[in-house]
Amino acid sequence: MPAYDRDNIFAKILRGEVPCQKVYEDEVVLAFMDVMPRVPGHLLVVPKVPARNLLDVPPEALAAVMPRVQKVAAAAVRALEADGLMLQQFNEEAGGQTVFHLHFHILPLHHGAALKPPGGPMEKPEVLAEMAGRIRAALAG
Amino acid sequence: MPAYDRDNIFAKILRGEVPCQKVYEDEVVLAFMDVMPRVPGHLLVVPKVPARNLLDVPPEALAAVMPRVQKVAAAAVRALEADGLMLQQFNEEAGGQTVFHLHFHILPLHHGAALKPPGGPMEKPEVLAEMAGRIRAALAG
Repeated sequence: MPAYDRDNIFAKILRGEVPCQKVYEDEVVLAFMDVMPRVPGHLLVVPKVPARNLLDVPPEALAAVMPRVQKVAAAAVRALEADGLMLQQFNEEAGGQTVFHLHFHILPLHHGAALKPPGGPMEKPEVLAEMAGRIRAALAG
Repeated sequence: MPAYDRDNIFAKILRGEVPCQKVYEDEVVLAFMDVMPRVPGHLLVVPKVPARNLLDVPPEALAAVMPRVQKVAAAAVRALEADGLMLQQFNEEAGGQTVFHLHFHILPLHHGAALKPPGGPMEKPEVLAEMAGRIRAALAG
């Protein structure tokens, strides 16, 4: 497996060099809206530890990340009044990974809703901002 | 969300009432081959705690589960000499869940390999047993 590249787009977001529609942040993770949502409310939870994916993240760091994934996922379900939720995590190109910093996809789902294919199109910033606001409100409520 | 049903098939596997092709077991999880693999080596990691899915599992239990998921996933990648790995976790029917006991799907992937659709067909027991043996050997090695 290649080494971690500290210039990947999520590392830049974590450093504040690239903007994001933030949903949640603490000392362990940053959660923000996916700019190419496969469903409305599609968001990403990204640990702050520099790990390429599931195969190199320190186990204790992973253990700390998951309750945050759960908390944000539950808030997304409440905010969207979703009927269900899919959690996905991709590792290496053959496993569907396109950004090589560990991240968890949270996909709130309604009955009968279909996932768009990964990879686009980009959602409008104001749509992502509105959705982020709803999920932040659910986290706070 | 409905309450946990202690007669789901994974609860029966955990109690030893239904057989499985076991890959790994400790006090926190049981890992075994999916009987309807979407790719060769498709396995499931199931926590012993009675939780329906990500939305009701106690956070500290989830934190304990994930390093086991990681360990088994890494062994599956080694055993199959996979190029990548997909991790999936489904919540409620709308989220793709069909067995209502929390479980993580580990899908080792090779370049160009396609996932079969979920839901069948059943794999031959001897094929699953051989695969489980290879992953157990990778865990031990």
